[in-house]
Amino acid sequence: MKKIYLDYAATTPVDPRVLASMMPYFSKKFANTMSLHEMGQIAGEAVENSRKIIASYINAKTEEIYFTSSATESNNLALKGVPFGSCEKEKNHIIISSIEHDCVLESSRWLQRQGFKVDELDVDKDGFVDINQLKKLINKSTVLVSVIHGNNEIGTVQDIETIGKICRENGVYFHTDASQSLGKVEIDVEKMNIDLLTASSHKIYGPKGAAILYVKKGVIIEPIIHGGGHEKGLRSSTSNVPAIVGMGKAIEILQKEGKKENNRLEKLRDLLIKEILENIKGTHLNGPINRLSNNANISFPSIEGESLLMELDFEGVEVSTGSACSSRNLMPSHVLMALGAKPQTAHGSIRLSVGRFTTEEEITKAIKIFVKVVNKLKQYSPFKI
Amino acid sequence: MKKIYLDYAATTPVDPRVLASMMPYFSKKFANTMSLHEMGQIAGEAVENSRKIIASYINAKTEEIYFTSSATESNNLALKGVPFGSCEKEKNHIIISSIEHDCVLESSRWLQRQGFKVDELDVDKDGFVDINQLKKLINKSTVLVSVIHGNNEIGTVQDIETIGKICRENGVYFHTDASQSLGKVEIDVEKMNIDLLTASSHKIYGPKGAAILYVKKGVIIEPIIHGGGHEKGLRSSTSNVPAIVGMGKAIEILQKEGKKENNRLEKLRDLLIKEILENIKGTHLNGPINRLSNNANISFPSIEGESLLMELDFEGVEVSTGSACSSRNLMPSHVLMALGAKPQTAHGSIRLSVGRFTTEEEITKAIKIFVKVVNKLKQYSPFKI
Repeated sequence: MKKIYLDYAATTPVDPRVLASMMPYFSKKFANTMSLHEMGQIAGEAVENSRKIIASYINAKTEEIYFTSSATESNNLALKGVPFGSCEKEKNHIIISSIEHDCVLESSRWLQRQGFKVDELDVDKDGFVDINQLKKLINKSTVLVSVIHGNNEIGTVQDIETIGKICRENGVYFHTDASQSLGKVEIDVEKMNIDLLTASSHKIYGPKGAAILYVKKGVIIEPIIHGGGHEKGLRSSTSNVPAIVGMGKAIEILQKEGKKENNRLEKLRDLLIKEILENIKGTHLNGPINRLSNNANISFPSIEGESLLMELDFEGVEVSTGSACSSRNLMPSHVLMALGAKPQTAHGSIRLSVGRFTTEEEITKAIKIFVKVVNKLKQYSPFKI
Repeated sequence: MKKIYLDYAATTPVDPRVLASMMPYFSKKFANTMSLHEMGQIAGEAVENSRKIIASYINAKTEEIYFTSSATESNNLALKGVPFGSCEKEKNHIIISSIEHDCVLESSRWLQRQGFKVDELDVDKDGFVDINQLKKLINKSTVLVSVIHGNNEIGTVQDIETIGKICRENGVYFHTDASQSLGKVEIDVEKMNIDLLTASSHKIYGPKGAAILYVKKGVIIEPIIHGGGHEKGLRSSTSNVPAIVGMGKAIEILQKEGKKENNRLEKLRDLLIKEILENIKGTHLNGPINRLSNNANISFPSIEGESLLMELDFEGVEVSTGSACSSRNLMPSHVLMALGAKPQTAHGSIRLSVGRFTTEEEITKAIKIFVKVVNKLKQYSPFKI
């Protein structure tokens, strides 16, 4: 049975064009970019070409793009690297939002264990961070603010430009995790006042194993992986040339086709939401305003999200209960809880994310399966509906 | 012109069989291993299968293998994770050898900046660490000893079993960087008293972007990349499934063909050494005893290594002046300096490393080119020969 994959926010398949661009770099142009001979130079040029493409896509300078192995690593590097890089000992305060990805949350918890002070910004019921609270929380010891651009669970896109402006006015570095938003929302690091930005390859039809951290020229940052001095000393390790080439190609495709693709995704996603809300009583759309084009997060009251996921999987529809990364713990989603959801509602929520290879036929079929499965599960629900 | 690649120690091409094993995981079985649906499970099983293959190859338990993105990351994780993971504040002393890879050296320098104490073990003229010095340096505050298994520049293979035994007798964790030795020297983590071991995929004809840290059950270690709790919380980040599958396949090939391959490489390498030493006056083999099967490090007095590299490159022979990672700085090799070489000799040294796809014909051709190029360079040398 061919599965209907509605989990593009967890990861995307590599676009065949991207894979084709990577192929020469596995076994032919395979050299170490640090090698001084011609084969090393060829590999190095491929990396620099990708860097250029990516920089131009977000209006950064080429030398402001640093390659890492993943968005998790980039987020760790930003969160830990900026406070550790600060020369001023009293700069020990970090502000994050309460709906960050686990890797930002856990990095900030680690910082707390090292003696740093961390504040979390509240969000309103639609998932937007409290701008006034941000203004109040920034103080003389604040070194970094980190707010996720497009949320990975509910898709809410923050007003990054305003947040960045407040940070800049106060002389505080601003980092945003754009892993989900890159390619779906236009990003201009200059216009949006961004000092550091994380983006990932495997969320945009590139391969796993490549990501970037944009670091604005002048930002002082300490590496978390030390070694031979790759990436101008910020991230040592033999460059993963095929993955980096693939990320560049993935961006090139977005540049050409992104707008049209987002329009198509939005329509498919809206159809999915409309039909589910209309046909399944008591369902509720989380984060309804200003969302990523491919995301829908829906609560199914009186149903346990994991049971729904399993039944859908059995019927050939692949969805998620929220972030893939935290799918294996039994805690309710911290994002939905921050929005004011009760634990029971948070447990009964499903993230649906469409993508490049989703067809209208699949959506129509998925809706029917949803209705069938939910009706089945309601029979077993201990709650009255 | 087809290049004669004698830089396998820097990186290897992906074996076509490895690449074939990876292909289904880019665009078909592409899901996130943390996803609960069937597609996620399929990806997860592929990762677990690789873990099993790799564990068995070094006589570890499957659950003792942790995937990372690179040997540099694994070495950073071991070097920083063990001291940071220690519950006892007074355990603040680390011992490394003076011929470690840059990523171990730089990690230990970072630890020093964080207040840890680091001692470096001397090596003798052949590159072997001073075992008596190790015994003397271990004290009550020592938490970790890290000694590279097969050196990346001169190929010297340390007596890891004895070093591990001393560490175990003293209740000190022992880490070894086996990036260069895996596949060339038999590794049995139990027999060799190893607590933590780093190994890399792209040095054994696997793809870049995968590596392991073996961590013996019971060793307490703190992550350096925090997040969604992948790899049992020790290394968060979406698993790079194709790269991990490829590393598993690369090990499978080593298991079947490694012994025969090493015999072949040793012969090619010995021919290369013999002919160069015989035909080029004043050359000297560095680290002549108990070396990796594929490595030769030769000093060419009165010649600048980088000029030699460039001339060889022009003639189609790809070699290295030492570690690829430190090829772009102008310092003499710290490994050769630790052996007692003068800066001038260290600067005039070349690392030649043969590999799976090296032919005898290539070696014969390379020797001729070496003689020709050295004779040419000697004309320009400011030193009398």
